[in-house]
Amino acid sequence: MLITLSTDFGHQDSFVGIMKGVIAGINPQAQVIDLTHGVPPRDVMAGALVLQNSIRYFPRGTIHVVVVDPGVGSARRPLLIEASGSYFIGPDNGVLSLALAGKSVDRIVALSNRAYHLQPTSTTFHGRDIFAPVAAHLSLGVAVEEFGERAATFTRLTVPAATRSGQNIEGQILYIDAFGNLFTNIREHDLTGLPSDRLDIALGPARIRGLATSYVAARAGELVALVNSWGLLEIAESSGNAARRTGVKVGDKVKLSLWE
Amino acid sequence: MLITLSTDFGHQDSFVGIMKGVIAGINPQAQVIDLTHGVPPRDVMAGALVLQNSIRYFPRGTIHVVVVDPGVGSARRPLLIEASGSYFIGPDNGVLSLALAGKSVDRIVALSNRAYHLQPTSTTFHGRDIFAPVAAHLSLGVAVEEFGERAATFTRLTVPAATRSGQNIEGQILYIDAFGNLFTNIREHDLTGLPSDRLDIALGPARIRGLATSYVAARAGELVALVNSWGLLEIAESSGNAARRTGVKVGDKVKLSLWE
Amino acid sequence: MLITLSTDFGHQDSFVGIMKGVIAGINPQAQVIDLTHGVPPRDVMAGALVLQNSIRYFPRGTIHVVVVDPGVGSARRPLLIEASGSYFIGPDNGVLSLALAGKSVDRIVALSNRAYHLQPTSTTFHGRDIFAPVAAHLSLGVAVEEFGERAATFTRLTVPAATRSGQNIEGQILYIDAFGNLFTNIREHDLTGLPSDRLDIALGPARIRGLATSYVAARAGELVALVNSWGLLEIAESSGNAARRTGVKVGDKVKLSLWE
Repeated sequence: MLITLSTDFGHQDSFVGIMKGVIAGINPQAQVIDLTHGVPPRDVMAGALVLQNSIRYFPRGTIHVVVVDPGVGSARRPLLIEASGSYFIGPDNGVLSLALAGKSVDRIVALSNRAYHLQPTSTTFHGRDIFAPVAAHLSLGVAVEEFGERAATFTRLTVPAATRSGQNIEGQILYIDAFGNLFTNIREHDLTGLPSDRLDIALGPARIRGLATSYVAARAGELVALVNSWGLLEIAESSGNAARRTGVKVGDKVKLSLWE
Repeated sequence: MLITLSTDFGHQDSFVGIMKGVIAGINPQAQVIDLTHGVPPRDVMAGALVLQNSIRYFPRGTIHVVVVDPGVGSARRPLLIEASGSYFIGPDNGVLSLALAGKSVDRIVALSNRAYHLQPTSTTFHGRDIFAPVAAHLSLGVAVEEFGERAATFTRLTVPAATRSGQNIEGQILYIDAFGNLFTNIREHDLTGLPSDRLDIALGPARIRGLATSYVAARAGELVALVNSWGLLEIAESSGNAARRTGVKVGDKVKLSLWE
Repeated sequence: MLITLSTDFGHQDSFVGIMKGVIAGINPQAQVIDLTHGVPPRDVMAGALVLQNSIRYFPRGTIHVVVVDPGVGSARRPLLIEASGSYFIGPDNGVLSLALAGKSVDRIVALSNRAYHLQPTSTTFHGRDIFAPVAAHLSLGVAVEEFGERAATFTRLTVPAATRSGQNIEGQILYIDAFGNLFTNIREHDLTGLPSDRLDIALGPARIRGLATSYVAARAGELVALVNSWGLLEIAESSGNAARRTGVKVGDKVKLSLWE
């Protein structure tokens, strides 16, 4: 049984390694894949976006554990959600929600059965004490309802939507990857009917004309716009780092229009 | 058989990947878990602390390989230590020692049997040439005493202890994690008998009153003190980075008293 | 069957995790090892050097996937190369070539058979859509020639060679590791016949006399020269970071002579 781990723990400490030790101690056969541990600290939205755009590449039945959990030790509930035959484990702060959009959510359980938690249970590291052992027991075949009482709902995040007015679209920067590529919230199908070679894309003072299909379509150092691997309009610097070059941040506006 | 790897190699180069290749070539069935590769370069104490606070989450019989090894190629011995049914492999510079405190040390072997080393053996990368192949052969069932001659002792590090005088405690910063949380050397049981809501914690010019049980117990931007997942008193910034905010470094003093 | 992954994706995003999901979905039994994901962005030469100096530590039959691919989506071909019983998958930009030097190259295939690619296939992430699924199918036993048409050649990189004139050698910095150690292009056998204790090594204004066999042969803060784990002359700072201290960059000159 496959378990993925996504956290904001970074790569300095042994927190992720400890979670893997807990899992291996309960189910030595579990296969664990690191989805990412580079979510910016406490950035629930970034964690939710990464999960949303990654899970379709994992087989049905995978157990996805997400620990971006600034409220650990507070009243926020730890959850296990079964949806479309896969499993999602993490805090009820919205980090699981974008991945579940459009999925049939079959069961939501608050992880209240302490028999499946490490004892003593800390108030600062539920990844180790609750989420990892629950994932490991689940991978052994323990039934979902064993882990706690049923819950009716979970916290949902809303991704800001791009708005289209005639042939103009206004969007914003949603995510910035390690290459400094700027992911916007403008989806491929938001562009339907617009001639891609006449698009005029404005990002602060910068202007890009037309959509490219590769990063090397422009000369090194020039900005290019393309539809990226998440299906989103992305602005990149050919052979460079667009985030560094433009100073743009998540939330900054992007405007599309047509040029004559 | 489970093998963990802990190093100060970072994540830029292929040094860790090479160690895994060596292990896979000797024992394709070995399961390898990265405990951490983010130990600060040559920081033997940090590596020792991370190992000490991680191994209890791994099953008995695990082989822990630690390569924080500034003296590689010098006279320092490469060791294999069996203790309480688990195995510890690394240089004799103290990096294994904190994990072994309180454990029954059954056998210490200096890794002098070159039959289990890669040939030629470099003077700069014993992780690849000695520690990885020894771990892999050990995981195949080779007897501990096969790897070299018995040794009587190993180098021990001493963690500076907090001192208590009446209702005052003086400690220091021991470790700083990727969130910028400041781990002190004051243990939970050092606080026995002190009323947690009347604690006054001084860190340079900063003052914290009382112990919290979660990072969000204070408003964003305020410092909180809590007992963390290592069982140590920790000072954190709610929704922030206490190390960046305070400029504190490992070794800096922390003082506890009671306020009226 | 063992698959290694080497990329310039870094550790922030889930791109590597997604590739592992694709592989696990096709061949749940495949064993995946991260060789490195820290190749500097788009640095094809660094990726080629890392691969070249790592693969000898992996068993014959390993499938090496390398995604340092600035030209993704352009006309550059995706390749599968079988050489000396192992397999190399990546873009035809030279990143595979140094590892293949001196190997018997048995088959070169351009990955044109879309039956083994994810559909739809993006123009920006062939690691996910082409290289990972091809590696997974290959690990299941699909024949090499199934993946596309035979190709006659592949792009080769040239590593700048050190030049020797009498007892003088001129070389350059080839790679800088996470410790700030400076790897030169001067190989151990380039030094044949030169007395190692009389070597005078010049790097900008810095001078090092003689070859050491360990990083601690010099006092902390002094530069040392030694033959490193790649078999190359390396310049390091004892207990420090030579790259930071000297400001040296890849391509900078190194000169060897004998002192009297």
